[in-house]
Amino acid sequence: MDQRALHAFFAPRTVAVIGASATPGKIGHSVMANMREAGYKGRLYPVNPKGGDIDCIAVLRNVSELPGGIDLAVIAIPRDKVLPVLEELAPKGLKAAIVITAGFREVGREGFELEQKMAALAEAHGIALLGPNSLGMMNTAHGINASFSATQPLTGDMAFLSQSGALCVSILDWARGENIGFSKFISLGNKAVLNETHMLRHLGDDSSSRVILGYIENVENGEEFMRTARHVCRTKPVILLKAGSTAAGAKAASSHTGAIAGLDKAYETAFSQCGIVRARDVESLFCLAEAFANLPLPKGPNVAIVTNSGGPGILAADACEKTRLHMARLSPETIQRLQGLLPSYASVYNPVDIIGDANAERFRKALEIVLDDPMVHAVLLLLTPTAMVEIEATAAAAVHLAKHSDKPIVSCLMGRTHVSDGKRILRQAGLPCYAFPEPAMRSIEAMYTYALWKQKPVSVYESPSRDIAVAERVISDAMARGQGEIVEFQGREVLDAYNLPTPKTVLARSSDEAVNAAQGMDGPVALKIASPQISHKTDVQGVALNLKDDAEVRQAFWEITTRTQRLRPDAYIAGCLVQEMAPQDSQEVIVGFKRDEQFGPLLMFGLGGIHVEILKDVSFHLNPLSRDDAFGMIRSIRSYMLLKGVRGTPCVNLNALTDVLLALSALANDFPQVYEAEFNPVLLNNDRALVADMRMTLRA
Amino acid sequence: MDQRALHAFFAPRTVAVIGASATPGKIGHSVMANMREAGYKGRLYPVNPKGGDIDCIAVLRNVSELPGGIDLAVIAIPRDKVLPVLEELAPKGLKAAIVITAGFREVGREGFELEQKMAALAEAHGIALLGPNSLGMMNTAHGINASFSATQPLTGDMAFLSQSGALCVSILDWARGENIGFSKFISLGNKAVLNETHMLRHLGDDSSSRVILGYIENVENGEEFMRTARHVCRTKPVILLKAGSTAAGAKAASSHTGAIAGLDKAYETAFSQCGIVRARDVESLFCLAEAFANLPLPKGPNVAIVTNSGGPGILAADACEKTRLHMARLSPETIQRLQGLLPSYASVYNPVDIIGDANAERFRKALEIVLDDPMVHAVLLLLTPTAMVEIEATAAAAVHLAKHSDKPIVSCLMGRTHVSDGKRILRQAGLPCYAFPEPAMRSIEAMYTYALWKQKPVSVYESPSRDIAVAERVISDAMARGQGEIVEFQGREVLDAYNLPTPKTVLARSSDEAVNAAQGMDGPVALKIASPQISHKTDVQGVALNLKDDAEVRQAFWEITTRTQRLRPDAYIAGCLVQEMAPQDSQEVIVGFKRDEQFGPLLMFGLGGIHVEILKDVSFHLNPLSRDDAFGMIRSIRSYMLLKGVRGTPCVNLNALTDVLLALSALANDFPQVYEAEFNPVLLNNDRALVADMRMTLRA
Repeated sequence: MDQRALHAFFAPRTVAVIGASATPGKIGHSVMANMREAGYKGRLYPVNPKGGDIDCIAVLRNVSELPGGIDLAVIAIPRDKVLPVLEELAPKGLKAAIVITAGFREVGREGFELEQKMAALAEAHGIALLGPNSLGMMNTAHGINASFSATQPLTGDMAFLSQSGALCVSILDWARGENIGFSKFISLGNKAVLNETHMLRHLGDDSSSRVILGYIENVENGEEFMRTARHVCRTKPVILLKAGSTAAGAKAASSHTGAIAGLDKAYETAFSQCGIVRARDVESLFCLAEAFANLPLPKGPNVAIVTNSGGPGILAADACEKTRLHMARLSPETIQRLQGLLPSYASVYNPVDIIGDANAERFRKALEIVLDDPMVHAVLLLLTPTAMVEIEATAAAAVHLAKHSDKPIVSCLMGRTHVSDGKRILRQAGLPCYAFPEPAMRSIEAMYTYALWKQKPVSVYESPSRDIAVAERVISDAMARGQGEIVEFQGREVLDAYNLPTPKTVLARSSDEAVNAAQGMDGPVALKIASPQISHKTDVQGVALNLKDDAEVRQAFWEITTRTQRLRPDAYIAGCLVQEMAPQDSQEVIVGFKRDEQFGPLLMFGLGGIHVEILKDVSFHLNPLSRDDAFGMIRSIRSYMLLKGVRGTPCVNLNALTDVLLALSALANDFPQVYEAEFNPVLLNNDRALVADMRMTLRA
Repeated sequence: MDQRALHAFFAPRTVAVIGASATPGKIGHSVMANMREAGYKGRLYPVNPKGGDIDCIAVLRNVSELPGGIDLAVIAIPRDKVLPVLEELAPKGLKAAIVITAGFREVGREGFELEQKMAALAEAHGIALLGPNSLGMMNTAHGINASFSATQPLTGDMAFLSQSGALCVSILDWARGENIGFSKFISLGNKAVLNETHMLRHLGDDSSSRVILGYIENVENGEEFMRTARHVCRTKPVILLKAGSTAAGAKAASSHTGAIAGLDKAYETAFSQCGIVRARDVESLFCLAEAFANLPLPKGPNVAIVTNSGGPGILAADACEKTRLHMARLSPETIQRLQGLLPSYASVYNPVDIIGDANAERFRKALEIVLDDPMVHAVLLLLTPTAMVEIEATAAAAVHLAKHSDKPIVSCLMGRTHVSDGKRILRQAGLPCYAFPEPAMRSIEAMYTYALWKQKPVSVYESPSRDIAVAERVISDAMARGQGEIVEFQGREVLDAYNLPTPKTVLARSSDEAVNAAQGMDGPVALKIASPQISHKTDVQGVALNLKDDAEVRQAFWEITTRTQRLRPDAYIAGCLVQEMAPQDSQEVIVGFKRDEQFGPLLMFGLGGIHVEILKDVSFHLNPLSRDDAFGMIRSIRSYMLLKGVRGTPCVNLNALTDVLLALSALANDFPQVYEAEFNPVLLNNDRALVADMRMTLRA
């Protein structure tokens, strides 16, 4: 999208309102009224076949009467008239459009096709088109409210974008009640042309927006979205509420605005890789925004609480421990200074309880002392409206301290009526203020998580050495034969091509060959059915483990092959793989990937056995993958300690494991036709990582 | 506590305010002003050595001037004068007292002792004493505000009790702003006499309180608290916020009001066994209270959402799936009726999206249709303030429907300014109304959980057959010898006494005896060091598994005993236990108990290996334990499926496992001197449960 078109969209010098109306209740009336109320300074052209005038502006009867090169057309006319209007305006140099009219993709096939045509037209002429089915757009810095919202937004420094018009309505109403203002407010509608990625890119450069907030149900182009978000998040925080995060939600989403919600795991992974802060509900979206808008980020996880009340102090400490933050351990010097300041029955440890009779001065001094402690990274001022407390003066002290500190001070004034003036003082100074300690702590946590992300060094990507041509041949051959899968006995060539170590394995076509092969191996062997049609070998009991002598191998070969013939008469049986057993001390892990529709290859890692299937103890990463990322994946499972070694077992070779993950990542990148792949199990010990079984799913 | 004393406490006919004052800013002034403002109708006696009069009531200069048999004395005088006043009033028939004065247990040893004396005095005279260090008590139904709160509560049907005075202040302030009223409001203070259990018992019978809310840091007598709560929760919901739920919080709590917070796991277990609803933060305490106060409980988990907006509908579906509720699957008949009602592009599935142009009548009819569906157990009305919506009329329709339905209707009017009138209509009718879908869904979930608890049949407790005398002898002998522990080789007698099956085991004092013993067993054997001083046998590598022949047994005996002698020269070594190995198909589980200071034996169950130690996948139950409870413990671990059998392994003998749990529960009950016990591992297969190792900790 041309940035000039987007500039014309957000700061148009000329606006045509197609479907403008003088009749209250009509959408075209609301748009005109909103533009006037917002104080629009540019040229406004109402268009309506009925003519007349609105607010002393003559109404044009036809779009043909409009001058060329209109910056923005706001369109609120019956559906079937939208495309003709755009067709007329496009050649005349229209730069941007907001299609408020609904009835497109969201109502069925015919609407979908109309929307496609409209999108094609806009793209051909470089028109920045918002909607259709949009509530509109507001830009308070430029006095624009090109929407039919019943509520005018206050001016502020948060940008908000939403895929749901209804949510826009609710949030405008709620924010007005909370005195929260916006820089820009965008209802994305059906996203025929302009989508969240365009908006992110523009808002990233928009000096009037300090924080970007949004509600999305899906993203249009996952990889571009990630690139853009990663870039924007370096400059300013992006806080998103993603709906459809559960199966039921996603089902509901897929019938809404016609969008198909992606797998939530992929979104979660994408957000965390790009530095996007994910809000868990509407309320926390704004709780977080208040903290991010004006505070410095904490440089570490340690929080100190300064309070005039014991009970709330405990609740805040509880809330702290439920996050990834820590209760700061105050230094001896800090404790000594606090002892000098406070009455003897105060608590000089964290939470610092300065007692119910604390006045503003005691609050100020205690805050100052804990802010001075180098091991304190963030401070929660927690006040209950006791009889003695000086609420407004304490708030003013906090404002003063915040101005001179590089540590975030978050306030929680517990209550509502008595604390409202104090709350106003804090908010006016841009300091967040909460009614309860829990959201305050969660906000500090989110800032800390974002700070950690920003501190991460830039990723360095390796390219594992591999023979792509060999793998290409195996995969092409399989696809040429119409195979939907590549299983172990064919896939071993691919593993070799990616330099992945595998246990010694021989394909035996007869029991004699199997016995011979086993004799050439150390220790007991395993036999596995070798058939391109059978990927779940255990379903046909196609695996025998721990075979110790010739007789056992011969017997197993015979049992496995005849049983498979009986159970799966359709399957071609090449024989059995004879494989060296893993040493007893091996730890089994599973690595794999699945290609996400939106975001591309989603890599997965987990421990074998029950860990993946039953306990769902797995970690994810979207391509590309650096070695640091791979270590991050390994470290972030709950059972990581099992790999580090517990009760005397040694640590497995984590470097060898990252090699396997990097090779898998490269494989996913090299072959888009591989839809899914799984190496299961990968056998680890303190020496190496062996890929003992694998399968891949192909898709043309 | 005498119920008449408590009656005098809550509805006194005579109140003496000791330390009453005419000077604004003094606590004794606030109490007098609050009593007057609350409209107290009984006789009020201010007492202050300065005399004079307050509000035209003559002030008595000395408590000796008070008539006998005062119902309630509110005491706000310097600490050291409190006890003398009580000593003077007690013999004159004082029935109840509120000690507002602070400086007792919470400030150190001297204060603690004074508090002890005060408690002893009150108990000796049957005085219902609240505090010390209490904000006071309010009873809106009787026009009483015996507190120094700056905020008068509105009248309502929620009772509130709190262990933190500061939280009382905040909540009164906040609730006033939210138009939430109270029946009774109690600041427990230090709980020298009256505690949460007395209050629960009284409020359970109090017809003006429909819901009991509370904030607690600890309970005084866990077992009595549980008995009382279990009884009260049958009649009305009890919703508690327990602070100190994390290690940091508990640390903060232990320095607050001098209370020692119990192990949170025990509280969580106690609450869930008693039917107490646990609020996760202050805000949700009231979110929950609104739902519980007036709605019928849902009879099942299925929720239907009726909304005029797609995006919020998805958020609500997400919120539903994050709870234990389900999105209702609407019946074909319901869907047909909705299709008849709604425009073609509406969604007739759940969430039912009746589209942005819905008026109140369409809302009413859609709600009526889904309420009629027998598979719908609760309904969420989710409204965004679009231009077309008739908010007040829709709210009124919901009120009407709620009156005629036995299903809960919870409303969420998203926004603030435009929806405030609708919210008021719902609240006045006692229907809960939330600003966002997430707390609405969590409220329905809590009601469903409470409904499930209420439906539970009364527990039937079995008494497992056992020989207590034998166990008594083993335990007494060990204690007589000064042992702090009983380990496997001594504890086997206890297991036998409780009829717990164990693997065949013989104590061998020499390698010859070990070889002989092994010869008498089926299959390979294990050897374990036998020493009363060694409970963690693996720490000295004191276990050898899977010994297959005489040579291995002899070698292992020699290695284990010499190694233990070297590593633990202090330990008396009786020899080794020779034990039959468990069959390969066994599943290992761990059962145990720890005696909680507040609540008594806390039983624990989990799978062996990593499940308990690393994954913390365990379930808990406080004694007593019924067989149903035991099955509940087993079913509630995440890895339960492993016991049911996965991929062809058979289900273990769950009945045999419950026998082990019941025996453990009986053991905990029989011997208070056993502080902790653990059977680890218990070996399960589809046939039986063998206790293969055990240890117990003793405490005099």
